[in-house]
Amino acid sequence: MDAVGNHLIVELYGCNSTIINDEKRIEEILVQSANIANVHIINSTFHQFNPQGISGVLVIAESHFSIHTWPEYSYCALDIFTCGNVFNIDKSLDFIKNAIQSTSISVTELKRGVKNFLQ
Amino acid sequence: MDAVGNHLIVELYGCNSTIINDEKRIEEILVQSANIANVHIINSTFHQFNPQGISGVLVIAESHFSIHTWPEYSYCALDIFTCGNVFNIDKSLDFIKNAIQSTSISVTELKRGVKNFLQ
Repeated sequence: MDAVGNHLIVELYGCNSTIINDEKRIEEILVQSANIANVHIINSTFHQFNPQGISGVLVIAESHFSIHTWPEYSYCALDIFTCGNVFNIDKSLDFIKNAIQSTSISVTELKRGVKNFLQ
Repeated sequence: MDAVGNHLIVELYGCNSTIINDEKRIEEILVQSANIANVHIINSTFHQFNPQGISGVLVIAESHFSIHTWPEYSYCALDIFTCGNVFNIDKSLDFIKNAIQSTSISVTELKRGVKNFLQ
């Protein structure tokens, strides 16, 4: 089905707790993953929580990447929302998984705004 | 099931195309919806695309709100990702739907990071 948006809902388990509690590292990883996907970053915002955890968002010309990390659970919730032709999401996601040393991943792909049913 | 995150995937159809192409208005709507939900805004970024469409993200202490709008299709893709105790999401979502004059809505609620299976 043709849709305006493609949304990956990604659960990343067994991550390296030190890496996913490092704001600068998480930002670098997301920016590099966006470069691998060949998407265009418009703006970004990252925040380190106390005592732990990071939230980060890249707004891209093609929609957004977001990540929320729970170092205490070695878990990250990642969303990759794209529109238009984005061809290297698999490589981008593989890069993130390896960079945060996740041992287990779940990916659900959603179509957003199925065109047949839009006005 | 107990989870670290709660994620609403919201499809908003039949929206007012003028409103959803107005960056300032969309930002005001999202900020007000966050206030209704009683969540805490840390940072925000909004972008107007040419010729049309808006992407906006609020990073909140409780995770994020994101919206992408397609005025040409009267369609918005909204995500509300929260963690912890957020009690007024229904009211917040109702406010957004009314503010953009959406005639039809689909909401899917996902649990992110189900605690039983975290380390």
